[in-house]
Amino acid sequence: MQSPSASASSHALPTAAHGIPTSPVNVERLRSRVDTALAAFLERQAGTLEGVSRDCGPLVESVATLMRGGKRLRPAFCYWGWRGAGGDDGDPITRAAAALELFQAAALIHDDVMDGSDSRRGMPAVHRRFASLHRGQGWRGDGDRFGLAGAVLAGDMCLVWTDELFAASGLPIERLEAARPLFNRMRTELLGGQYLDVLGQSLPEDEDPAADIERARHVIRYKSAKYTIEHPLLIGGTLAGAGEELLATYSAFGLPLGEAFQLRDDVLGVFGDPDETGKPAGDDLREGKRTVLVAMAMAAANPAQADVVRRLLGDPRLDAESIGVLRGVIEDTGALDAVERLIDELTATALKALAEGPVAGPARDVLEQLAVAATARAR
Amino acid sequence: MQSPSASASSHALPTAAHGIPTSPVNVERLRSRVDTALAAFLERQAGTLEGVSRDCGPLVESVATLMRGGKRLRPAFCYWGWRGAGGDDGDPITRAAAALELFQAAALIHDDVMDGSDSRRGMPAVHRRFASLHRGQGWRGDGDRFGLAGAVLAGDMCLVWTDELFAASGLPIERLEAARPLFNRMRTELLGGQYLDVLGQSLPEDEDPAADIERARHVIRYKSAKYTIEHPLLIGGTLAGAGEELLATYSAFGLPLGEAFQLRDDVLGVFGDPDETGKPAGDDLREGKRTVLVAMAMAAANPAQADVVRRLLGDPRLDAESIGVLRGVIEDTGALDAVERLIDELTATALKALAEGPVAGPARDVLEQLAVAATARAR
Repeated sequence: MQSPSASASSHALPTAAHGIPTSPVNVERLRSRVDTALAAFLERQAGTLEGVSRDCGPLVESVATLMRGGKRLRPAFCYWGWRGAGGDDGDPITRAAAALELFQAAALIHDDVMDGSDSRRGMPAVHRRFASLHRGQGWRGDGDRFGLAGAVLAGDMCLVWTDELFAASGLPIERLEAARPLFNRMRTELLGGQYLDVLGQSLPEDEDPAADIERARHVIRYKSAKYTIEHPLLIGGTLAGAGEELLATYSAFGLPLGEAFQLRDDVLGVFGDPDETGKPAGDDLREGKRTVLVAMAMAAANPAQADVVRRLLGDPRLDAESIGVLRGVIEDTGALDAVERLIDELTATALKALAEGPVAGPARDVLEQLAVAATARAR
Repeated sequence: MQSPSASASSHALPTAAHGIPTSPVNVERLRSRVDTALAAFLERQAGTLEGVSRDCGPLVESVATLMRGGKRLRPAFCYWGWRGAGGDDGDPITRAAAALELFQAAALIHDDVMDGSDSRRGMPAVHRRFASLHRGQGWRGDGDRFGLAGAVLAGDMCLVWTDELFAASGLPIERLEAARPLFNRMRTELLGGQYLDVLGQSLPEDEDPAADIERARHVIRYKSAKYTIEHPLLIGGTLAGAGEELLATYSAFGLPLGEAFQLRDDVLGVFGDPDETGKPAGDDLREGKRTVLVAMAMAAANPAQADVVRRLLGDPRLDAESIGVLRGVIEDTGALDAVERLIDELTATALKALAEGPVAGPARDVLEQLAVAATARAR
């Protein structure tokens, strides 16, 4: 598989004075400013929770630790959606954008609970962290049950903190009100998409393989594409008072790009380097995810290949050899090439929409660089 | 144990023309108006989710089914907090109050996941409902894991819908902004309280039994008392522009009353009739809840009685006979009488604060009746 860093370096990213490429996420020092906003917010919440009890410390710590990782893609799309609509740089939009990172944290924490995933961003998943705390302290009862509870509550915290930080961003109330329908839609649609994703692992194989591919593509639009790129852009734009034409550009850019982003994530979930993905090699195969990649492999598989996939996919004890066998089927059926082509097509469609739309000033360039970064690398 | 209905009927509840007592929750037809607001809101959300996929139907249905039960206590305290501050009757405050019922639904759904509870409000818990759907359809994979995921997402939906309905209530933005710090505090403190509750089941017994009683009382303030009564009152009052003296009255009334409410709930969890509680008899004993009732029993137990509690409490297979034995210990140690006295004292403290405070018009009477209903009956 093509290395994500090789792919990224083939495009002109902004370069710092000392010659090391700067991530487009950090143009205008956005990443560090988002992190500062998140740290200040979490410190305030830690104070509130300390008022409840000092014992609540691990709740905030688990969130803060998770947030040390991550690319801040969603805040970046929100911020540049704002700038692209003519909004000025400032701390209020940075805080509003940072709120999306809390929403992402909620989705990840609960996703890992639902999938029973062991790790995230190269660290133990939040429910594993709470289970370890329980065992380390020698507490009573079932450590896994405690871990589950801790992660359900930590994710809930991130959900309620999302709208708290968004509302407390300091942006004018009437602008926040204008963006609220999008903010609401983003949240409900993501949760619906996550449900479809879970359901997709449970439904029987469709007799028509093309229907399975279409279903998998539908799922990623809602469980990932929209809330990663389209909705952050639309929220940022609406906060700055964007007109209909610009918002239509953001959708025409964001939706295919979001799909390409998730397809890249799916490829990395099968072929990616654990150092890049923060998950063990082949983790998506072990969890039995019915991705577009898998659906395409099944559509093109001969009976023997299809049997291999049916037998191995979703086996939690899958070893390196079996992962190699599954990877082989995905490559031999042409599914990997087909998904790479789809990523390229979707990204090209997105970039064309961006080039043709009325996006202001430096935002156009940064959004183009973000598009490359989002489709070339692990989350 | 004293029957809750006997206790309730010893106070003067409002009586309908045909002689059947009307619940104070339905004064001004509040209960049915809250239900109308919730039904309209859920129908709108069902539309949004149908746009994602028809397959999302069970998410909204699970919430709507859960909400058929429940007493609407939190909306009632919010509404009468508003009226007590001179607010006029109207649909906007009814919608804002109804949002608290969505918050309650989120707490219950996730609570049942964390506790592994089978039933709620006399029906299968939401995670059991999703597990049954999975089994009934003969889907692939683990039905319990699907049930867990469905309930995590349904609870997440209710959390994000809480602030959506609150913000979309139609109340003036500046009033909503004034109440927002309380709304935020309510949510974070409840989640902290739920964590303390889970932690309480895991921590070892304290060498000082009085410390265990104090810990249990601290937990119920945060996991139940505040978000059931004090915060809804304060939110309603603040929405109507209440002054400091009235808000202080609401706290002085709401906090002890909330504690009494949860102590009543704890008594019902051990001694209650399943028809009243919507949970199997002795469910809290089976789940091993470290309630004030249990902590008081341990504090007063002789060594043989303490051994019985240590051996039986939290055994998931506890049968009717063992439940009878545990109930016997709780009665024989005097813990039941002590908790009943504490409920009476806390309720009296609350009612005194209400009587002395500047609460407007009919709200004073209805709040008094709500206080009786909240401490006399199952949720």
